[in-house]
Amino acid sequence: MASGNELRPYISRRADLASGATSPRKFLEECIERIEAREPQVQAFVSMDVERARKLADASGERWRAGRALSPYDGMPIGVKDIIETEDFPTEMGSPLFVGWRSGRDAAVVKALRAAGAVIVGKTVTTEFAAAHPGKTHNPWDLRRTPGGSSSGSAAAVAAGFLPAALGTQVVGSILRPSSFCGVFGYKPSLGGINRGGSHDFLSQSCTGVLAASVEDAWVLARDLSGRAGGDPGFPGIAGPEALPAPILPTSVILLETAGWNEASDAARQALADGRDRLERAGVKVVDRKTSSLVEEVEKAIEACFILTRRINAFEGRWPYNVYRDMDASKLSPGAAERIVQAFELTPDDYRRDLAQRDQIRTTYARLAEIADCCIMLPATGPAPMGLASTGNSAFVVSGSLLGVPGWNLPVFAIDGLPLGLQVLGFLNQDAELAARAGGILATLGMAELRMAG
Amino acid sequence: MASGNELRPYISRRADLASGATSPRKFLEECIERIEAREPQVQAFVSMDVERARKLADASGERWRAGRALSPYDGMPIGVKDIIETEDFPTEMGSPLFVGWRSGRDAAVVKALRAAGAVIVGKTVTTEFAAAHPGKTHNPWDLRRTPGGSSSGSAAAVAAGFLPAALGTQVVGSILRPSSFCGVFGYKPSLGGINRGGSHDFLSQSCTGVLAASVEDAWVLARDLSGRAGGDPGFPGIAGPEALPAPILPTSVILLETAGWNEASDAARQALADGRDRLERAGVKVVDRKTSSLVEEVEKAIEACFILTRRINAFEGRWPYNVYRDMDASKLSPGAAERIVQAFELTPDDYRRDLAQRDQIRTTYARLAEIADCCIMLPATGPAPMGLASTGNSAFVVSGSLLGVPGWNLPVFAIDGLPLGLQVLGFLNQDAELAARAGGILATLGMAELRMAG
Repeated sequence: MASGNELRPYISRRADLASGATSPRKFLEECIERIEAREPQVQAFVSMDVERARKLADASGERWRAGRALSPYDGMPIGVKDIIETEDFPTEMGSPLFVGWRSGRDAAVVKALRAAGAVIVGKTVTTEFAAAHPGKTHNPWDLRRTPGGSSSGSAAAVAAGFLPAALGTQVVGSILRPSSFCGVFGYKPSLGGINRGGSHDFLSQSCTGVLAASVEDAWVLARDLSGRAGGDPGFPGIAGPEALPAPILPTSVILLETAGWNEASDAARQALADGRDRLERAGVKVVDRKTSSLVEEVEKAIEACFILTRRINAFEGRWPYNVYRDMDASKLSPGAAERIVQAFELTPDDYRRDLAQRDQIRTTYARLAEIADCCIMLPATGPAPMGLASTGNSAFVVSGSLLGVPGWNLPVFAIDGLPLGLQVLGFLNQDAELAARAGGILATLGMAELRMAG
Repeated sequence: MASGNELRPYISRRADLASGATSPRKFLEECIERIEAREPQVQAFVSMDVERARKLADASGERWRAGRALSPYDGMPIGVKDIIETEDFPTEMGSPLFVGWRSGRDAAVVKALRAAGAVIVGKTVTTEFAAAHPGKTHNPWDLRRTPGGSSSGSAAAVAAGFLPAALGTQVVGSILRPSSFCGVFGYKPSLGGINRGGSHDFLSQSCTGVLAASVEDAWVLARDLSGRAGGDPGFPGIAGPEALPAPILPTSVILLETAGWNEASDAARQALADGRDRLERAGVKVVDRKTSSLVEEVEKAIEACFILTRRINAFEGRWPYNVYRDMDASKLSPGAAERIVQAFELTPDDYRRDLAQRDQIRTTYARLAEIADCCIMLPATGPAPMGLASTGNSAFVVSGSLLGVPGWNLPVFAIDGLPLGLQVLGFLNQDAELAARAGGILATLGMAELRMAG
């Protein structure tokens, strides 16, 4: 079957859920229909329990009818990236070392999802340990292409209309890149925004976030999870209103080329240039490296992000990668094995220097708040590349990870029938402000018009 | 039997280990002798494997003989606080919920200990989840008294000569208070100094450290563990030389009374006053709240530490305490159950305000570096109190935890035949500088002369 863009927002239906015009079970059944039709090809899930989801959806329906919904997303079918522990499903981390492994407990976010009445449908495919080695998932827009990583299954499941939202994590580009490749909304909160307890992404740049069918689904879910579970210990978490802030068109934005620019396709550059034109016509002032020496300074500073992130991640991965290695080295990907070698070549002094450089880059970037409301940039060099052996180039998304600032992917561009996003980055712990600007930019640019060949 | 102070340093014997004048096995056998004699009363261990330790010690002996020791503490018998995961022993966290629980993996520090050739003898008793509810351990100086908590078993085992060192963790006062009560050296590094991966102390103030028979054992072990495993992700770890820095008598120290002063016994105050006199006679300038308005300001700022720490810990404990509660609430102590209630009464906004206040206190304290080399204070209101139902008052040790600065307990005082320490606090990430000052102070004051009744 040929079908339209499959994104299926949930929270916007809450009036109908409250009135009984629709129900969580009805919504879920429509998801299941899509799952049954396309999951055999897309392979977004590692594990799934449809019968259990039906029971949970029915219980949620009772709550909506009784006027006792536990949250605005009570009854929402949701997927959980398979590096996050769940009591009911195994947590396999995309590694043959952990096939069938059960921790016996819920991660902090999973516990919060249940308290909010969400319907956890299953675990979504991750690359090996949320790093580079790909899982089995295909891009629903073109099965020959990568969905991106590491939150591969979460992005594909939302794109294919299996789910309105799924949890992801990002340490290099693992939320925003797959969101761009799959044409979904991605929201990576400020560093530490959502408690990572029980999630096997322990790196200092790693952050839990949401891939979703709308800005509202992503915001409300992430904000609520932070409120229930807290942020990471010692971090303020996501502040701001529980409901999606009203869209605000930015007064001025900074266009960042980043280190990815030389690798971007002409079509991707052209898409961004068109987006820029439309924002300018709407009255937004766009500043770039040609017109601002501060932007030029930031562009130079963030050139180091990719290498620095690799080094920082490697050093911080000494443990548990040494545990994985000693469990059974033959079950690690070559990339993971290399990373362990690099981890022990780097010294603590190297690491301290890398941290100091990271601090410096963050400080330089923060000054951009003086001249604009947010930054825009490409999230990828182009649409999802052909092949499943690589999850694609992360040159455009790594800066936001290193900076620790909030970021969005907005699915506003299309190239040759494939989605490409616009990346919007904000400033540390200004997540609500950024959500409002992302909404304003989306309202101006509109979602890409694309039809998915089913 | 009556015996002298039982502290048994290890690293100072490395010349004899290298020459063959002694061996790890011989050292271990002397430990085992003490364990066999007193462990039935002291109860420092949750689990132990003496036969395995013998094999590991023999292997270490081979390395020393071949000139291939893996570290200066190769062959050191060591205990691991039972909230830190070990592949070979269960990790029970002082909770009936986790009796016999095995994670199947080594924590980051345990992996590092093995790589350094340390001989892990067993897991040492912790209070429930390293919080307040006491375990079974008795104070080896007087079995009717508490050893302090939460690193109860680690402190008792070192004090009784079972081990030259054991790992501990501190979030309120869990290294320095039991060190004082048991008369051992305690070293809590700067926040994030030693990687907590696989240790079930996830709170933002929590820190892994060492309880040991000497300043050298504590420093070399902690510094080496940080070098091998790194600090917490995003933290610089413990910098400075691998060997113990040479003792330096501080030029000037700040005497802090802290919020604990009004609760301190006359004898404890007198001990501190005597210590002060001796330092002054040795040429150290001592500044206090009466002679410095800055010190007075800091004293006022740190008054809030206890309440603030309770609130921060409670909020951050929402997870996994909600998981523990849902596993089997009847197996939680009343204190843990109360803490869950408090956790969900506090809002994220409360928590953000608490973090902001903590930042402010830290900033105020940091200014003390302008006027002195370090701070000295009591670590406890007096010697270990009678009874095992409480691990004692933490009013004196909570400030160092909240501040995140490095701290030592030096066993330099004695009251009625029982040990009382001197707490020495330094400045963030100046751990080597503080170790040198702690050594200088110890050389001036000398260890308390005490005899343990066996």
